Amino acid sequence: MAAVRIYEVSPRDGLQNESEVISADDKLALIERLVGSGLRDIEVTSFVRPTWIPQLSDANEVIGRLPRTEGVRFWSLVPNRRGLERAIDSGVTNICTFMSASETHNKKNVNRTRAESLAALRDVVAIAKDEALGVRGYISTVFGCPYEGPVAPEKTVELSLALLEAGVDELALGDTTGMGDPQLVRTVLRALTDAGVPLERIGLHMHDTRGTALANVLAGYEFGVRTFDGSVAGVGGCPYAPGAAGNAASDDLVNMFESMGVSTGVDLDALAEAGVYLASVLGRDLPGRYHRYHLGACRRAASRSA
Amino acid sequence: MAAVRIYEVSPRDGLQNESEVISADDKLALIERLVGSGLRDIEVTSFVRPTWIPQLSDANEVIGRLPRTEGVRFWSLVPNRRGLERAIDSGVTNICTFMSASETHNKKNVNRTRAESLAALRDVVAIAKDEALGVRGYISTVFGCPYEGPVAPEKTVELSLALLEAGVDELALGDTTGMGDPQLVRTVLRALTDAGVPLERIGLHMHDTRGTALANVLAGYEFGVRTFDGSVAGVGGCPYAPGAAGNAASDDLVNMFESMGVSTGVDLDALAEAGVYLASVLGRDLPGRYHRYHLGACRRAASRSA
Repeated sequence: MAAVRIYEVSPRDGLQNESEVISADDKLALIERLVGSGLRDIEVTSFVRPTWIPQLSDANEVIGRLPRTEGVRFWSLVPNRRGLERAIDSGVTNICTFMSASETHNKKNVNRTRAESLAALRDVVAIAKDEALGVRGYISTVFGCPYEGPVAPEKTVELSLALLEAGVDELALGDTTGMGDPQLVRTVLRALTDAGVPLERIGLHMHDTRGTALANVLAGYEFGVRTFDGSVAGVGGCPYAPGAAGNAASDDLVNMFESMGVSTGVDLDALAEAGVYLASVLGRDLPGRYHRYHLGACRRAASRSA
Repeated sequence: MAAVRIYEVSPRDGLQNESEVISADDKLALIERLVGSGLRDIEVTSFVRPTWIPQLSDANEVIGRLPRTEGVRFWSLVPNRRGLERAIDSGVTNICTFMSASETHNKKNVNRTRAESLAALRDVVAIAKDEALGVRGYISTVFGCPYEGPVAPEKTVELSLALLEAGVDELALGDTTGMGDPQLVRTVLRALTDAGVPLERIGLHMHDTRGTALANVLAGYEFGVRTFDGSVAGVGGCPYAPGAAGNAASDDLVNMFESMGVSTGVDLDALAEAGVYLASVLGRDLPGRYHRYHLGACRRAASRSA
């Protein structure tokens, strides 16, 4: 039994932020490698309107062709009731909803107020639970909003309680643009646990935009969180800035935890190979660290550095 | 007064690991930007044999043209007595010695046993102190050796005590190939402090080869260390692997600490600009995160990510 759970988001959050559109075949080859590495939670696609995120417009095909592996849960993002219905029709078993802690980000992201999003979300969760789906609730901009700046932890607490009441099984706290720091992670987690949110229901979805993802994960782990999101090789940077950092790299997470003696249930070499594969499919360097180290090219450099 | 001290190594450890050789003019322009950002400790060059590291063969010129700024200490690496003599002739005021905690790495790096290195180093430190120079003692491979694997903390303790007895003012514990993890950082620091090494004498010199640099720094900070090495934009990856991660990026460190409310005395924007400048001089993307974020290109992406 793994001591921490790595929730893999590369096929969805990673690829949705890549300018390149890759084929369903390549996605499924990636997913097979991820499953083969031992990952047991993989977010594979999104049922947003296909014209909105063309990178994921093959959601039906991807879901239809997923490898059936005992113990693996595949997750799909749904933006609204219509997306949920499409997802159910395609045969998904686990869905993710999302909204923002910040009012401005929520408006810009889905063109609704937070109150409107929450009402719609309650509806979506109720239907999903009726269908016996697993439900994850993302909260974006928990650690800062690119429009508003700091986001009061109270907003996250309020929303978390509402989502749990609505029936979501787990929360994922998103550091959407990588504004978090270890101290803020602790502050937010303290506010949530003080309000009665169980740590077992909380996952951390950190982005490495400013380089703090692993330090933030460490702070979360030491606080008691046991679910961490990552995308292999850190894929998903930013379509407007080639080479910019994206999600925490799941191979970097696995390496850190396993080095610390904290079991992840994931084969690090196999996961790094999946990262190397994905970089070759995308035809460019990806921002994560471990998969590049894995390529082995740094071996010789060691002999001349102080 | 800054709460932590960022010790900048880009002109030396950074550039020595770049395949590109840049001009003394460009180095001095970089150093001026680093000084301008508020950094007060900058390692500017190395007095190794010029044929050995051609990137730093202009050590004399760089030292001769350094900006004279109140409160700034410039440091130079010296490999041996001959290097020290050249450094003194050029007018340096602060030097760094180095050797490895691992026997194999020490042999491969300087073709001497650890015992031979330590004897030579005692000699170097004695002369340097006679000349009233500041002396820093690097210990490489503290958190792992690319040849031997794990390195017993006792080796670092023994060497640290010997170096302090020899007269070095401060120690820099090097994670030469980025093998450290937060738990190991704490284990090594505990061993050192248990042996009587004062935390004020300890700096952490982390590499981000496997993505753990900032998490390791966080663990060190929480243990009580207050000196952290970084190179702006994370320059100094690995000449054999374009794009591989090098030193902890000093702008990433400053961002993390300042976000946590821990003062560094450094202007983050000015430091990030120095990173952007260095990337333009080298003509390639550098692995650090913050300076790229600073370029601002991720702003628009924020509106479509969950």
